[in-house]
Amino acid sequence: MTRSSSRSPSTSSSLQSTSATTSDAASSRPNSHDLLDPSAAANGLPRTPAPPPSSDVLVVGAGPSGLMLAANLIRFGIKTEIADSRPERTVTGRADGLQPKTIETLKQMRLAEKVLLKGVRVYDICFWKSTATERLRRKGREIHYPPEVVDLLDPFILLVHQGMVEQLFMDDMDERKGHVRRNLNFEGWKSLQMKNRALEATFKNKQGDGKTTFRTDYIVGCDGAHSMVRKSIPDCRAVGASSDSIWGVIDAEIDTDFPDLWSKAVVHSEQAGSVLIIPRERNMTRMYIELKSETREGVPKNELTKDFVMKRAGEIMQPYYLRWRRIEWFGRYQISQRVASRFSTDDLNVFIAGDASHTHSPKAAQGMNTSMHDAWNLAWKLNLSIRGLAKRSLLETYEAERRKIAKDLISFDYEHANAFSAGDAKALAQNFKTNVRFISGVGAEYAPNVLNVPANAGASTSPWPLVPGCLPPPAKATRFIDANPVDLQLAIPMLGQFRIFVFASDPCGSSRPFLEALGSAHLGQGSLVGRASAAANASYTLQPPAFGESDTFIRPERYTPVSGLFTYALVVAGLGAGRDRVELDRLPPLWRESRWSVYLDDAAELDARRMSCAEKWWGGLARGEVAVVNVRPDGYVGSVARWADGSRLSGERAVRWLDGYYEGFLKGD
Amino acid sequence: MTRSSSRSPSTSSSLQSTSATTSDAASSRPNSHDLLDPSAAANGLPRTPAPPPSSDVLVVGAGPSGLMLAANLIRFGIKTEIADSRPERTVTGRADGLQPKTIETLKQMRLAEKVLLKGVRVYDICFWKSTATERLRRKGREIHYPPEVVDLLDPFILLVHQGMVEQLFMDDMDERKGHVRRNLNFEGWKSLQMKNRALEATFKNKQGDGKTTFRTDYIVGCDGAHSMVRKSIPDCRAVGASSDSIWGVIDAEIDTDFPDLWSKAVVHSEQAGSVLIIPRERNMTRMYIELKSETREGVPKNELTKDFVMKRAGEIMQPYYLRWRRIEWFGRYQISQRVASRFSTDDLNVFIAGDASHTHSPKAAQGMNTSMHDAWNLAWKLNLSIRGLAKRSLLETYEAERRKIAKDLISFDYEHANAFSAGDAKALAQNFKTNVRFISGVGAEYAPNVLNVPANAGASTSPWPLVPGCLPPPAKATRFIDANPVDLQLAIPMLGQFRIFVFASDPCGSSRPFLEALGSAHLGQGSLVGRASAAANASYTLQPPAFGESDTFIRPERYTPVSGLFTYALVVAGLGAGRDRVELDRLPPLWRESRWSVYLDDAAELDARRMSCAEKWWGGLARGEVAVVNVRPDGYVGSVARWADGSRLSGERAVRWLDGYYEGFLKGD
Repeated sequence: MTRSSSRSPSTSSSLQSTSATTSDAASSRPNSHDLLDPSAAANGLPRTPAPPPSSDVLVVGAGPSGLMLAANLIRFGIKTEIADSRPERTVTGRADGLQPKTIETLKQMRLAEKVLLKGVRVYDICFWKSTATERLRRKGREIHYPPEVVDLLDPFILLVHQGMVEQLFMDDMDERKGHVRRNLNFEGWKSLQMKNRALEATFKNKQGDGKTTFRTDYIVGCDGAHSMVRKSIPDCRAVGASSDSIWGVIDAEIDTDFPDLWSKAVVHSEQAGSVLIIPRERNMTRMYIELKSETREGVPKNELTKDFVMKRAGEIMQPYYLRWRRIEWFGRYQISQRVASRFSTDDLNVFIAGDASHTHSPKAAQGMNTSMHDAWNLAWKLNLSIRGLAKRSLLETYEAERRKIAKDLISFDYEHANAFSAGDAKALAQNFKTNVRFISGVGAEYAPNVLNVPANAGASTSPWPLVPGCLPPPAKATRFIDANPVDLQLAIPMLGQFRIFVFASDPCGSSRPFLEALGSAHLGQGSLVGRASAAANASYTLQPPAFGESDTFIRPERYTPVSGLFTYALVVAGLGAGRDRVELDRLPPLWRESRWSVYLDDAAELDARRMSCAEKWWGGLARGEVAVVNVRPDGYVGSVARWADGSRLSGERAVRWLDGYYEGFLKGD
Repeated sequence: MTRSSSRSPSTSSSLQSTSATTSDAASSRPNSHDLLDPSAAANGLPRTPAPPPSSDVLVVGAGPSGLMLAANLIRFGIKTEIADSRPERTVTGRADGLQPKTIETLKQMRLAEKVLLKGVRVYDICFWKSTATERLRRKGREIHYPPEVVDLLDPFILLVHQGMVEQLFMDDMDERKGHVRRNLNFEGWKSLQMKNRALEATFKNKQGDGKTTFRTDYIVGCDGAHSMVRKSIPDCRAVGASSDSIWGVIDAEIDTDFPDLWSKAVVHSEQAGSVLIIPRERNMTRMYIELKSETREGVPKNELTKDFVMKRAGEIMQPYYLRWRRIEWFGRYQISQRVASRFSTDDLNVFIAGDASHTHSPKAAQGMNTSMHDAWNLAWKLNLSIRGLAKRSLLETYEAERRKIAKDLISFDYEHANAFSAGDAKALAQNFKTNVRFISGVGAEYAPNVLNVPANAGASTSPWPLVPGCLPPPAKATRFIDANPVDLQLAIPMLGQFRIFVFASDPCGSSRPFLEALGSAHLGQGSLVGRASAAANASYTLQPPAFGESDTFIRPERYTPVSGLFTYALVVAGLGAGRDRVELDRLPPLWRESRWSVYLDDAAELDARRMSCAEKWWGGLARGEVAVVNVRPDGYVGSVARWADGSRLSGERAVRWLDGYYEGFLKGD
């Protein structure tokens, strides 16, 4: 198939047709690792044209989803090029909120701390209302993520500017010699019918007249609502509708006597409309101001100026005063709720992610989060596929999983935006309560497929059980080797590998035969997992992960001492378990090697619900019982099972069960 | 008085006579902010000699204590020069452990996060022993900081290399245009009899032949065990003794089957001696190896080579194998336990801090910590003195407070070192248990003086009460304005200001008259605190604090809206308190302005002991009761008092009580 990009008028409308105006803060320091389009460098001397950049994956677009994808691929050791049409990272405006699940994801990448230091944390949400006869007053103040509704390690929204998130990824890539090529407009791609580097993508240089071509095996379009990559995928349409409501958005430092400026606040005036107030880093405030009535009344869109919007905000906030100290950014947008009809080509070699695949209202702070999680879902699947370790079925799960989430998001967003515009504080609060797990990100749940294999009934009696296709609830444990308390779901760094957690009460005694059987199978060639491990290790030897200077402190090698494909984790838990039941040198060999992932389930007092890990994940374990969970590289539960005892027979059954799971999507030869 | 430095032979011996050998890691990247001695730059052209650098404070020595001092002074807006004899920061070896209190201190400076990310955390300590007849085995494994013994927010030792700590401060100074001048050997100082810049200090340039002079009002010698500044202070001697025991110390990456490598471990072989094992960042291990028997047997000191020490370590660790993958640093030292007879001149214009004022054994990881806390204690006192806000009595407290701690440290160290050498695991464990508060740093307690005014009997019924001269126990609260959970003792950034915490149950109702009275006095000129505030504000207007880019995220101005000398903090606590009792705009003016330091005492479930702040700090508050604590800029409790009700009369008494406290050391005119 040879194909150039469609240049027909867009079938989708944009999420945000914004116009940056003032930009007097957020210093736009030059990024030493941004490469300008090389062909734009005219030195006047004749020279041999450089061969086209060649990669395993070409990422189009260096926003949060493109950078999340590229940063992970580069870490995995995948040859990755990133091309972006903009001359630099986002300097002002656009997205600003990281949800709890996104913070967790950044922790899995060891990147969260920098933004946690700088961001503003929002823990509650306030509702205000005025009518023609009633002065503006607070109708309610609620905890945004109530602990009895949703179990979160970081139960807050972290407000940081999108540019800071982009910088985080760029710095991480920089450590690993990854770069963004800038000022390149994607035009299209064609299939080359070659063995390797099967695609050729063409870009127009924004500086100079030339074109730049890339040879690559995969293209991923993270190029936003107007995605040109989406348009290049046959039969791919953005399906949905735009509302006629228009909103203004302002980032500013303001002076006001409104008391709830540092909570998330919804202010609804029956007379003048609605404002959503969100506190921001650097003493800033973001305000979303509704302009719906104007369009109804026929005020032309281009008269909805910054001054008009500022004045309207002041009217809604009355009788509180609102003075503008400094305006950093102003934009307008029209809500468009669309999902792409497909997320990839039939050949599974051109994909879309982020705004390219779905658009919606920005007000629940979902866009940047969902977009990054598209990339988070795709990155490890591409890695295993490119390394020849995965069956086609693995890459197929990307569209199945992420398109469901996009549709869930649109459904939620539709109700949420309606409740918001109606100004009904109670309805909005109710909408929040119903959707709070989803908004936090931990409620993004995947349907059963080869990766997510439903458990037998009765697999857990916990009220928050492990469910394949869902995230495990946060749990605390003590790492045996150094007695450090850890978050069990985060303790093993994300290195593109699966995590096999075995829960057993007596690993050097009655549970030892089980561990011995499982370990032997994994070290040998008699099981699919053993063969897959060997193939992965060979691949990572040829094409190793890219480690950066920060990894000298993390020591990734501690977590994959046996296999680049699996971390074997042991949680000493259940009746009779205890520190005295463990000596590392009395564990079977595979587990002795895996000494950095042996845990004691004795840290319940650190958990928000004061529950042990076994209680949370399994509803407790009976005496002698052994339980196993496969956790996917992206942290989702893959499959779970439990055995009544730690005998060799149970261990051999577990080996067959594991092989059964992994052969759904791994090659094992 | 005119005085040149004493050049007579040292009366003290050094703490560590170390010889760095191998140094193949810890890249010594050039520090752009290190200025070489300017007179060493010979450009061959004739030029007008630059005037001598002029400063409020000249810090001699850029190790942890000198940099802690300089970083704080620069933040406070004090003109500070730093001169160091070394060509660059510490690259390998030397100190490596940060105690819990030091982590807290770095948090108060907003600097802890970077080292927390990179350091190794030690939570437990193991004791091993072998005899002629018994194979080496574990005799005990204990929690290093047991929660029932000591209440710590960060109950671990953080192992990070001293050079990383130095870099942390240098980066912070760099943000604020502070620099270290290098290759300068301190020679002496003389008094100039001038109004300002009363001292002249002379340094020999290590590069080139010249001298460099500095004009300054204060000199602080942070120049280590061999301090030349100490020798320049009349009648100042290092008093104490050296032991004849010699230790070797190795930083290495090792390979071993010893199972407790990632805990702190004491290994004692009756045949071969003792090893102390401490895990380090970057997969390193530090080993202290006892060589006492060699010196007794008359092995000459210079035969105690690296190879000898490595071999000895291997013998002690038998039957476990010990392979050396990479040795980063090797040193030898003789323990010397000395305290300087005085810490300053009579004129209180030349001081010493850190190793210059006390030396001891390194094995309890106290040196770097105590040294930094000398500087932490001195910095804010110098700031207030230089600004003309403090009486002489304030600077006098430095020696009184820190010399006591140095002597406490030597007493503890003597017993600790003896227990260690004796190899008696039980005695060592007992020594630890007795001293664990002191080792953690939170047990450093100051005697009563003008700053630490003992409370009346019955001031608190808490088992961990607020004691003047001690640190407040950690406590959790909710910041009212943004509903963020905070650590109450850390929530207000250290800006050189006192913190006045008022605990009251009904600040907009029955406690309001108290707050009103206190606020009026502080805003006016009728009280000493009001006048001192006004003088401080005038001083900070003329000579403002130095803010860095990271402060744009911290917003220091939120915590000193009324006064550069005081943060007014309100904790809504006690019987009947609750969120519904507070509306910011119904608070009296001073408290309305102080909106970023209003807290709700409703976060007991986040506390390790599940206690509310009022329970912890006051043993609970009766209905209507109001309690006030003055917290010093360095976080120590200054004075405490409580009143039965929130009436205006009680408030007026509180004003007089506050004036009485502050006039002990503040000028108020």
